[in-house]
Formats: sequence, structure tokens, C-alpha cells
Amino acid sequence: MKITIIGSGNVGTALAKRIFSCGHLIHQIYSRELAKAETLANAVNAAATDDIKRLDPESDIYILAVNDDAISAVSNIINPGKGILAHTSGATSLRVFEGKHSNYGVFYPLQTFSANLEPDFEELPLCVTGSNSNSLENLAQLAKSICPNVYIINEEQRKGLHVAAVFVNNFSNFLFSAAYDICEKENLDFNMLKPLIRQTIRKIETEIPGQVQTGPAARGDEGTIFNHLAWLDEHNPDLSPIYKMLTTSILNIKRLKK
Amino acid sequence: MKITIIGSGNVGTALAKRIFSCGHLIHQIYSRELAKAETLANAVNAAATDDIKRLDPESDIYILAVNDDAISAVSNIINPGKGILAHTSGATSLRVFEGKHSNYGVFYPLQTFSANLEPDFEELPLCVTGSNSNSLENLAQLAKSICPNVYIINEEQRKGLHVAAVFVNNFSNFLFSAAYDICEKENLDFNMLKPLIRQTIRKIETEIPGQVQTGPAARGDEGTIFNHLAWLDEHNPDLSPIYKMLTTSILNIKRLKK
Repeated sequence: MKITIIGSGNVGTALAKRIFSCGHLIHQIYSRELAKAETLANAVNAAATDDIKRLDPESDIYILAVNDDAISAVSNIINPGKGILAHTSGATSLRVFEGKHSNYGVFYPLQTFSANLEPDFEELPLCVTGSNSNSLENLAQLAKSICPNVYIINEEQRKGLHVAAVFVNNFSNFLFSAAYDICEKENLDFNMLKPLIRQTIRKIETEIPGQVQTGPAARGDEGTIFNHLAWLDEHNPDLSPIYKMLTTSILNIKRLKK
Repeated sequence: MKITIIGSGNVGTALAKRIFSCGHLIHQIYSRELAKAETLANAVNAAATDDIKRLDPESDIYILAVNDDAISAVSNIINPGKGILAHTSGATSLRVFEGKHSNYGVFYPLQTFSANLEPDFEELPLCVTGSNSNSLENLAQLAKSICPNVYIINEEQRKGLHVAAVFVNNFSNFLFSAAYDICEKENLDFNMLKPLIRQTIRKIETEIPGQVQTGPAARGDEGTIFNHLAWLDEHNPDLSPIYKMLTTSILNIKRLKK
């Protein structure tokens, strides 16, 4: 297939490189910054442009890997010809393309992308949605050629998935960050907690998280909860309301299970 | 060294097996249930008893691996002779032994223990506190012989560490559990989120969590936050207050950094 990549951020770069290495032709790379477009284009044997209006309307698929808040604006300008236009956002409705294009969809890799950490396309799930059967088929075909874990999902499911992703990624990282702050204040090495974090993840590789919930709240150990809150009030008062709310939630689940 | 293990739960079992396999003599295993004491005693070539008053006062170290709320009561009864009595709890003060014993301390492996998942003593941190220099030296010596990551910490540090452990283990598991519930309601396979969870952890292996915080709150993306809250109010209202509080906390940190 002939593919155009719009955007040279972390997602655009990762997708362009993967699609290229899986044997597809990358036709053009667009970025607002020409130098960035050229760097990526060189890596995947494509042409570079910083003029969205000069995109060649001859590709089969146009992957729109720009910031969420730019998707609508870019999709107003772009002419994908008979090609399929797909954004890569978990948070953006398919309707952003409605009335502007006829063949479109979503090509959503459910992963956190950063410049330093290569995504593993053998591991991550690639979620695909299409505006019609032709769009869906072509996007799914491209997806399957670069990733073994392709899921066809609907709009409602992608919304739920994106909220769930915020819980497991952004919010858990925030908890790690809270623990980091506690360690810093008490002159403790945050590395001490990493084996525990790794084991927490290992447990849920095979078990349902709700069934392996441990800790003072899951045990209903009110003495320890009281001591922790008193300690937080004194040492890290910003974290007290978070401790209270999460503890209350775990206690409520415990009560419901009885 | 000659060691007595009091308690045959997950922590007692793991410690007994590790201490034995590192070449020490396990003298006795105590459990309220004789059958349990015998099973573990057989595995580590020790004697078994279910009578706490009949513990031999000849061991060098007595490891008290019982539930937090039983530590005080057991320590009232037990006679460790000239040996050192150490509990394994992150949440219990050293003072629980005060006025009852003269040589005591804490022998706290910072890890979550379960029957199904073997702890890795090459990886976990073992935190040691002693009531006097002799107790500390002996406990540290035993610790170093079974684990390369031994930390001498004080009471205040252990409290902070235990609170931090609740954040990274219990609370993050609760977030995974919330994501599991979302997936179940939307007919999505929770396995889809596991690569994202793994990547979240991989990031903080080398980076400070607060510096790799991503997501709608870290970006200040109020549109997505609004959409997520509307979605949660409709689909999983129990999770809305948690989403709000964690998002507000991340937004506040963002503001402070400016």
C-alpha cells in the first residue's frame, strides 16, 4: 500500500517507521516543521513537505497523527483523493471527518509513545474503526500487516478504552509520582519501591486485579489506615484526600462483596 | 545462624525457605495450625509447633511473621532468651516490643507476598531496624546473607515507605481494577491494556515519574477531561469522583511547576 503520514511527533514517527519496515511504500511525510518532516522522510524513503495543501492525493491511506486539537482543522484542508483518512487519537470521535470526507476511520495504537522508548508493535493493540466497509477493510489490512493484535472496535468502545487508559497509565503514574515525593522527603531511594511496582504488575498478568487487591483497605485494617492518614496529614497533606478517597473506594467494594 | 520462624503465612514461608536455602539453620517453625507448621518445617528441615509457649529460647533470631494485629499479643507471650525478636511488618512500630524484650528489631521485606507468586530475594529490598547496635548488627548480617539489597532505616522512614507502598501497590492495583470494570462493561478485553501498563512501568525504570506524566490533565486538555467525565457519569459514575480528584491533583502540580 501507498501511505502518507501527517505529523512527525512520537506517534507519526513510530507508525511511519513500522509501516515502512513492514514493506509498505511511504509516499509523503508532512510536518509543520520542514526539517522534522525531512528527517523522518529520509528514514522511510519518502518525500517531505510542510505545506498541507501540497499533499499528493494519490495515497491509499492518510494517517493523521497530529495533536487531538488539530485534527479537525487539518481535516478541513486536506484532500486525500480516493484514499482513506484515519486519525490515531483515542479521544477523538470519528464524526470529526463527517461531511468533509467519505472514506475515513481511526487507526489507534493503544500505547504511550515517547521519544526515548520504542513502542513494540508485536505487543501493543492496534484498534481500528471505519466509516464504511471499504475503509474498515483497508485500515484493518494495513493494521494486520504491521501488528499481530488488531481489534475492530466501535466509537463507544474506543471512548471507554481511552478512559481506562487514563486510569492505568496517567493515574497510576501519578501515584508513582506521589510515592516518589514521599521518598524524597524521607531521604529514601525511590528505587526501593520498583521491585514492588514490578510485582504489582506481574500479579495482574495472570489474575483479575479486583481479586488480588491487598493492603489496609482490602483487609479493613482501620488502625493502619488511621496511622497512615495521621502520617500524611503531618508529612504530605496534599496526598491525604487522595489516600482517603481511594481507601474509601476499596472499602466500599469490600462491603459490596460481602 | 540459628533461626526460629513464627508464622507460616506467605511472608513466614518465603523467609523460612530463603533463609534455609542460604545455609542457615531453621530451628523451629510455629503456626497456630500444627499441620501448616509441619508442612513448612518439613521443607526447611526444622521442628514444628503450635504452642507458642514451647518455643525453644536458644535461637539467635526469632522472626515474627504474623498478622500486624497479632504482633503485640504474641510478643507478650514469647521468650526469645538471649535471641533477637524481629517483626516483619511495615506498619508496626518498634515500640510494640518496648518494656517486654531487650534485643529486638524489624526485618521488613518491602514486597507484596502471595502464595502463587514467588518473591525474588535478589530483587526486593530488605529493610532492617534494631533496638540497639547488637540487634541491628545481627539482623543486618542475616539480611545481607539472604538479600543483596539491605537498607538500614529508622522508624520514621519505615512509616513513609509503608505509605508509599500503599500508593504504588494497593492504589495502583485499584486503578487497574477500575479499568478492568470499564472494559467488562464495554465488552473489551482487559488484556488490551496490559502492554500500556507494562510500558508505564518501563518508563519509570529510568525516568522520574513526575517528569514523564502524560495524559489530558498533564496537557491541560480540558475538552478531553470534560468528555471523559461526561462518559464516566453515564457509564461508571462510581469512578467520576476518583477521575476528578486525580485530574485536579495533576492539574495543580502542572500549575505549581509554571
